[in-house]
Amino acid sequence: MPAIVESVPNFSEGRRKEVIDAIVSSMRSVPGIKILDVETDPDHNRSVITLIGDKSSIQEATFRGAKTASELIDLTKHKGQHPRIGALDVLPFVPISGVTMEECVDIANSVGSRIGTELKIPVYLYESAAKKPERVNLEDVRRGEFEGLRDAILTDESRNPDYGPPKLHPTAGAVAVGARMPLVAFNVNLKSNDIGIAKAIAKKIRTSSGGFPKVKALGLMLAAKGIVQVSMNLTDYTVTGIPTVFEAIRKEAHERGVEIMESEIIGLVPLDALCDVAKVSLKVPGFTSNQVLERKVWD
Amino acid sequence: MPAIVESVPNFSEGRRKEVIDAIVSSMRSVPGIKILDVETDPDHNRSVITLIGDKSSIQEATFRGAKTASELIDLTKHKGQHPRIGALDVLPFVPISGVTMEECVDIANSVGSRIGTELKIPVYLYESAAKKPERVNLEDVRRGEFEGLRDAILTDESRNPDYGPPKLHPTAGAVAVGARMPLVAFNVNLKSNDIGIAKAIAKKIRTSSGGFPKVKALGLMLAAKGIVQVSMNLTDYTVTGIPTVFEAIRKEAHERGVEIMESEIIGLVPLDALCDVAKVSLKVPGFTSNQVLERKVWD
Repeated sequence: MPAIVESVPNFSEGRRKEVIDAIVSSMRSVPGIKILDVETDPDHNRSVITLIGDKSSIQEATFRGAKTASELIDLTKHKGQHPRIGALDVLPFVPISGVTMEECVDIANSVGSRIGTELKIPVYLYESAAKKPERVNLEDVRRGEFEGLRDAILTDESRNPDYGPPKLHPTAGAVAVGARMPLVAFNVNLKSNDIGIAKAIAKKIRTSSGGFPKVKALGLMLAAKGIVQVSMNLTDYTVTGIPTVFEAIRKEAHERGVEIMESEIIGLVPLDALCDVAKVSLKVPGFTSNQVLERKVWD
Repeated sequence: MPAIVESVPNFSEGRRKEVIDAIVSSMRSVPGIKILDVETDPDHNRSVITLIGDKSSIQEATFRGAKTASELIDLTKHKGQHPRIGALDVLPFVPISGVTMEECVDIANSVGSRIGTELKIPVYLYESAAKKPERVNLEDVRRGEFEGLRDAILTDESRNPDYGPPKLHPTAGAVAVGARMPLVAFNVNLKSNDIGIAKAIAKKIRTSSGGFPKVKALGLMLAAKGIVQVSMNLTDYTVTGIPTVFEAIRKEAHERGVEIMESEIIGLVPLDALCDVAKVSLKVPGFTSNQVLERKVWD
């Protein structure tokens, strides 16, 4: 199987269809690239595009997307609810198949370097690609947004970019380029309307309050259904997978006298994350995605 | 996604490597064909080849395989433990993706007709492709083997082929051509050395003794491990899937004071059969294989 790298660039334009189309077209024009999804949000004035390609085509495509965005989006005129520092705001590379995280870090570096040099846009490397611990979290990189960073980059040495000039591009701003695992968005609904229980379970399992590593979790009320939900992002399913959190929630809920009603897998899930479910629930220790028939077909 | 049809032809040659290679090469020579697996068994003197292609290439490839086998294998000189009626003995077509069982029946008919007309080999249609109820079971079609069928076809009207001449090809015999669902070979090991329990559970769940439809099951002793196993073939996982038999075995074993030790999925498993596992064990009613990331990549 050829290596498959995913990228999920976020662009600061969610209203002008012709601009979004031009950005998508410029990325799609690279042979071997497949655009999986384009989500535009007029309120956030932001578009999130999901594309895949091999190690080489994904670099060329995302560079072209950055270039087109820098030509068509003017951040001095951009308004929207979502925090942003650039026309192309965030550019993560995600290992899907036949490619390591280290290679995705290399890709982030080489695309980041090109954006810095050729487009004169400062680049901050984040998450697994971060060169400094204080840049692992995207929120920290994006602090102050375009308007705040425009001043800070000139005076605060800690805001020096990893690539590109030490000042914002006048209209395109800066870009956060990173490497991360695919996200798994997994929610578990409880047969209860007690938001306290959902919040307590979320707190038990999430990383930030001492639970499982690589888990973000919130307790939510689903008013329309009259039930509560533990809503999760698994930021590295190879560290903490779906069966682990499902079983933990089942146990925590059971101890509080509550049962699981049903679950939801939101959006796309990597095949390996699904194989983990079979492995645990059927007790098939040796099972791997190499045994999935379609994988042989597609390889 | 282009339609994907699998075929699993069984050839009556498991010893002469050059013959097996020639058969594989003749099938591989069709553009769009991928050979997934070649299993040769010298004791059975038989090879089972798994290949995939689109609706058109799979027909051409399997016809070429039939032709090569008819030129290189002489059943009058063939000895082996496995029952067989032909050089190419069995030729099933299996719907994998974007193709219906009805289309696979059409494919069986058109390849069968070509084998009958061009190679002068009688063809019996079996399983979903059977035109007569008494030919649904492959065992019935193969009754008497090459040597017995050679005489019976001349005298017994019920052995008249569906395509081709009403007498065996002198060296290549006859072929059973069919259409069937992909098999799922699934075994559950019990924490017990009581073969009676494994046999009783197998009897409870298999079709032939009034259990679930489309399930073959045997109770076996795994002498080396000192435990017993319920060994299954799910012949249509869309009718009875992995989670159904797993849960039934768990319950039946539990009632007999025995727990499940582990399971095995043998060989390849269709993605949809795996998605069923997630659906049941995580209680995700709406989950489908369209949410598997790699599927988007490969589509």
